[in-house]
Parts: sequence; structure tokens; C-alpha cells
Amino acid sequence: MSKARQHWIEIAGSITSPHKYRAAAICAGIKPGSQKKDLAVLHSEIPAIGTALFTRNRVVAAPVIVSQKHLQTLGRWVQSIIVNSGNANACTGKTGLHNATQMAFWTARALGIKTQQVLVASTGVIGQPLPMKRIAVGLPPLMKCLSPDGGFDFSDAIMTTDTRRKICVVQSSGLGTPVTIAGTAKGSGMIHPRLATMLAFITTDAALLGPLLKQALEEAVAVSFNRVTIDGDTSTNDSIFLLANGASGATKIVRRNESFKHFSEGLTQVCTSLSRQIARDGEGARKLIAVIVSGGRTVQEADRVARSIANSPLVKTAMAGADANWGRILCAAGYSGVAFDPSRVHIVLNGLSVCRNGQPTGYDEALAKRLLEQEEIQIDVNLHRGNKSVTMWTCDFTEDYIRINASYRS
Amino acid sequence: MSKARQHWIEIAGSITSPHKYRAAAICAGIKPGSQKKDLAVLHSEIPAIGTALFTRNRVVAAPVIVSQKHLQTLGRWVQSIIVNSGNANACTGKTGLHNATQMAFWTARALGIKTQQVLVASTGVIGQPLPMKRIAVGLPPLMKCLSPDGGFDFSDAIMTTDTRRKICVVQSSGLGTPVTIAGTAKGSGMIHPRLATMLAFITTDAALLGPLLKQALEEAVAVSFNRVTIDGDTSTNDSIFLLANGASGATKIVRRNESFKHFSEGLTQVCTSLSRQIARDGEGARKLIAVIVSGGRTVQEADRVARSIANSPLVKTAMAGADANWGRILCAAGYSGVAFDPSRVHIVLNGLSVCRNGQPTGYDEALAKRLLEQEEIQIDVNLHRGNKSVTMWTCDFTEDYIRINASYRS
Repeated sequence: MSKARQHWIEIAGSITSPHKYRAAAICAGIKPGSQKKDLAVLHSEIPAIGTALFTRNRVVAAPVIVSQKHLQTLGRWVQSIIVNSGNANACTGKTGLHNATQMAFWTARALGIKTQQVLVASTGVIGQPLPMKRIAVGLPPLMKCLSPDGGFDFSDAIMTTDTRRKICVVQSSGLGTPVTIAGTAKGSGMIHPRLATMLAFITTDAALLGPLLKQALEEAVAVSFNRVTIDGDTSTNDSIFLLANGASGATKIVRRNESFKHFSEGLTQVCTSLSRQIARDGEGARKLIAVIVSGGRTVQEADRVARSIANSPLVKTAMAGADANWGRILCAAGYSGVAFDPSRVHIVLNGLSVCRNGQPTGYDEALAKRLLEQEEIQIDVNLHRGNKSVTMWTCDFTEDYIRINASYRS
Repeated sequence: MSKARQHWIEIAGSITSPHKYRAAAICAGIKPGSQKKDLAVLHSEIPAIGTALFTRNRVVAAPVIVSQKHLQTLGRWVQSIIVNSGNANACTGKTGLHNATQMAFWTARALGIKTQQVLVASTGVIGQPLPMKRIAVGLPPLMKCLSPDGGFDFSDAIMTTDTRRKICVVQSSGLGTPVTIAGTAKGSGMIHPRLATMLAFITTDAALLGPLLKQALEEAVAVSFNRVTIDGDTSTNDSIFLLANGASGATKIVRRNESFKHFSEGLTQVCTSLSRQIARDGEGARKLIAVIVSGGRTVQEADRVARSIANSPLVKTAMAGADANWGRILCAAGYSGVAFDPSRVHIVLNGLSVCRNGQPTGYDEALAKRLLEQEEIQIDVNLHRGNKSVTMWTCDFTEDYIRINASYRS
């Protein structure tokens, strides 16, 4: 019990920090003319329990279908994930499915494992066939690079319009022996989170039963990635992978006990950190915005109001302009579908009360502007209907977003 | 019957084109420092049947509340509408309600009618008190300007970030004598239609029973304004007013007969034209986009898919860049919640087939780019599930949108 109360400490590292993971990345030229690393592999030296959460979009990219199949076929024992950026292999029909399977097959052959032990992820443009020759040529040198130090290269290779690597590594001795959980992610267009292709890869040397690993991931994602990317409203490729290879030697978690709870805390910490990093690095974004809605009768209604505010382009452009235009915040809450009483709402921006009971407080506009010029903005909205609260992350919305997205394929 | 088959002809004119309407507008200085006309009045010389549709936002602006009350109190007999731009009188509490009523009272007194015969509309910034002294000073000269030629001034005065007046006037002899229906509207931010404050004013010299007039408006709006501005997801001030004063001398429509049907056609024509004008003049927009989804099992599902595509910032930025990125269109359809089969979907952009059965057609990208450089873009999506179709209007999404909205209050 006392061990389980220990905290997870964030440490420097990468997704190869947990025991017995290796990774590598190279530039295979998947996006013609690009010099960027775009083909990467993550590998556990011993079979790991794997689990994943995938997009709920009706249009599902080929690598998602193949990964789902492989996870089902092999009862969750996986060893590797092969990833490319520059091409999403989405809307590519039967050829796309064949190509995704082929990527897994080639990777398995090179590593001496089964095809079903390899998961596949892709991100990039939609509707164009994968350049399979480039991948075939790239795979042998990629496999040669596999190294316990390859985690950073992997993180770089999955980026598309991301401007920085997103990594979080935490460690704890709360499970009897030092255990590490590491994650890396890529984000994307953030104006409307449902459109962001989001990939995340999490490794750990803890040991858990498959169903428990899946539960832990679902619970962590519900309060992290799903508070950035709208649940059920995702892109064709969104995927979150989690491998647990047990190489730390820690006792296997087989029940929802204190150890499970402790592991879940660490996993949630990694997922939350990656979510914040994704929001902060939204396309064209200069600011991280946390929308905290409290006083909801239920978590669901606080979530709806927070989501409505976090998705409002008018709120996000106001934040870009450091404009305390709280009327837009109240208006966005107003179309969330939650039947709150506007005349009871309080709004606080970076600590400054701008609206009490639905009306202006007579705050100092110059002070508000200075406060909103900071790189992190916290929008607190209290509905005064109950005691449930939800935090949602987003970013401000600048002219650069348009520049990036109007010319994405050029 | 034969008369009812006549068409409505679009003519030059304004909202004072129907018989016995007058209008006026002046610059009252409601937005400090602005030289723009911002206070306007519309007046029927004889009492008219009035009806209106208002925002469904939970946060409702004061003028909307007052107009609703006046319409209920007086059993629909109204004579005037007083309107200001530059300040939305929203999120202004009891003072706001008092101010909106005061505007109606002053207008009624000047025109020798009852306060309840005056409706009120406001558009502009949220959360700031109306400058009532400026309105008090402005009203007497405004009333002196009332004229049968004042319709254009009225249209100019309601504009905020609109770059052009929006007017449509139609005429027909299908009701036995020449009848005119005229409308004017203002649009706004169009990136995400639910945020646009939309005001529309429609006048006619036809005569209808109140309940029928309301039905006609609801039916026309369902296929026009609601295909631009999302139903139930509106701003605090959205309002569509319709006055029918019967001054044409045409027989009063008291039943859902052929005459009603004919009137509805004219009204729908006016509403559709204004909707297209609003979409084309979205903030920063350079292109009008019509999204036509066919092959739906129901109108509702075609509507959901069309709305999802029309709201997608990634689709709208692609259209701004003349990029035939149809994968984004299919992806947006994919998160609409409609369970279509992606492998049966066809997509045609300005006549060019780019996707058949969910896969690329091998079209010429250079040709696609040329076609998408036109000012009007038609996105045809066939789901191949049924025979229902829906047309939705939107605009492309350019860097100017951000510029306008990040500095709206500065």
C-alpha cells in the first residue's frame, strides 16, 4: 500500500528508455523531395502485451485496419510497430490494405518475428498510394539502425507539421522495482480537434494482463487525449499504441488493485503531458489554452461546455489577439446544448474575473490584455449548477494555420 | 391553378420595394469613431402581420427577448423594426433588457404607435452596454429620414464585417395582382457557421394569416438560412423577421392552398438568394462553395454529411488553395456520424470526377487546380444509399478570416 502512494517522477529520456526497447528512423523519401526522417520502427526485444485505441471515423485508413486485425489475431502479443509519415495510406482501397500488410510482413521478416506481431501506423496526405518501392529500399537500412538510443529519431520521424518532438517519460519504484513508462506523439491541425491526425506510442517495462492494460489505456485517454481530440470525431488514422513487455521484472498486475491504480496514474501522467504538448503545438499556434469548466451537474455537461468553448474559432482567434472577449466564451457555452442559466455564470481569464453572473465585472481591459499575452491561457468558467469539472486543452488560432493548410499538398 | 404556376421574377429594388414600406438609416456613432451608418428603422405605413425566427442559443441577447415578447403580446400586428449595428446588446443583463425596450418605446413614440408594435434587433460586440445617449440623440433625425427610398440605407446600416449589401427582391402576378417580396440580410464570420450573427429582414405586400406566414417562413428558412447557419447552434442575436402588410391588395391567403404554395416559392427564392450572398461574403472569403450531397437514405443524413463537409476547416482551406484534396472531403463525411460505405462514395469537384467508389480516379491535378480557381465551387458527393439530397452553402477559408477576428474589438 505504501509503495503505491509513491509518485511518478518525470525523467529525461525517450520511448526506448524502458528496458529492452529499441527504435530507429531514416529518411526513405516518402514525401518526394523531403529530407526529413519519415520511416521509423519501434521494437521490443521480447514479446510485449500490446493494446491500442483507434479512430472512430467511418473512413478508416488501411494501417488502422491491419493493426486491429493483428491485435485480434495474436491475442495481443506484439513486438514491433512500423510507422511512416508523409502519406496516410487512407482512402486507398484494397491496394492500401495490401501495402499496409506488406509493410508489416517486410518488418517481421527482417526481425525474425511473425507478421501479426507487427502493428502499422501512417500519417500524411490522404488518397495517394504509398510509395512501396521507397519503403522496400528503406527497410533494410532502417532495421540496421535499431538501437536503444533510437527513441529520439523515432519521435522526429513521426512528425508532420509538428514543430517540436513530443515526449514524456516517467519512472517510479511504486511497483516494487523501478518501472518506466515512456510516450511520444504527433499532433496536427488543431483549429477543430476532430480533424487532427494524432498518433501516440507508449512503451513500458511494467507487466499487466492484456485486458487490464486496455482498461488502463482507455481510462487514461478519456481524461487526456480525448480532452484534446474529440471522441468519435476523429481523423482516418488516429491511433494510440501501448506496449508492455514486463522487462522491469516488476510483479505482473493481474487485478484492479493498488498496483493497477499506481500504474494508471503514471500512464495518465504521460498521456496528459503528451496531450498538452499536442495542444501547444497546434498548427500555427502560439499559446496553450486550458479551458476549465466547473460547477457542472455532471462530467458530461461540463465536458460539452468545455468542448464547445475549446472548439470555438472566435474564442481561439480572440486569444490569439490577447482580447478578453468573454462574450464569445459565454456564447460558445450557450450553443453547447447544456441548459445552464447564463445569469449565474462566472468567467475568469488567467486569474482575472471578467464576468460575474453573466455580466461584465468592469475589469481593466489593459490589464486583461497583458495577462492574455502570456503563452499559457487558462479560461475558467463556473456554471454554478453542481460540483463536476472538466479540463480541456486547445491552442490559439492564428493566420499561420491557414497558410499551413491551404498549401498542405503543394 | 394556372396563376400559381407563374414564376417569381427577380427585380432591382430594396426592402422598401413592396407597397407602403419606408426605411431610414443614420450614423449614430454606436461604435465609437466609426463613420458608418449604424442605426436603422423599417416601417410599414399600415399595421402588418409580423413573424420571426430567433436564435436557439442558450444565451439570448436582450433585443431577441424583447422582440419575442412584443410578437406574443400583440398577436403579431407590428409596424416597425428598430436596428443597430456596432453593439449586440448581448450578455448585458437587466440593463440590456431595459435598453432594448427603451429603443422600442422611443421608436413607437416618434411614430405614434404602441411600443409592442416595434421589434428590435442588434448586432456587434457582446458584453458592452448600448450607448443609449447616442441612440436617443440619433432617433429623431432617423425618423425624419424615413422614406420609400430608404431601403438601401437600411441594408448598409445593418452590415458589420460584411463587404457588400445583401438584397433580393422578387415580384409575381401569380396571386392575382402584382405582389413583391423583398429581403435584406447581414452575415458574419463563416468559418464555422454556427458562430455567425445573422440578421435578415423580409417585407412583403402580400396578405397572409399569421400562422400561415410563420409556417411559410419556417419552411423557407429550413432549406436556405439553416443550410448556411447551423440549426440550434446559433449566435446570441440571430433573427429573421418577416412583415406582411397586405398593401398589394392581393387576396389574403388563409389556407395551405396553391396561393400559399406560390407565396412560399417566392419567399424561398428570396431566402435562398440571401443565404448564398451571406456564404459568398463570409469573413475573408473569396469563393462560394455549394456542397451537394445526394444518394442519402433520408434528408437528415444527407444534411449531416453536407454540414460536416461544409464545416470542415481543412476542406475550406483546401478550397482556398484550389487544392483538390478530396481525401479531406471523404474524411469529413466520415465523422458525420452517418454509417455510409466509403467504398461506394463518388466525389465530383466542379464537374471533375476525383473519387469513384472511395478511390482516386486518376484525374489531372493541373486541370483540377484550374477548375477550383473559379469563384464558385460545387462539391458533389454521392453516398449511393438512397435518393435524398441536400445543398449546403459555405465559403472558403482564408488568412483574412483570422486577421478580422483576432482584432475584432481593437
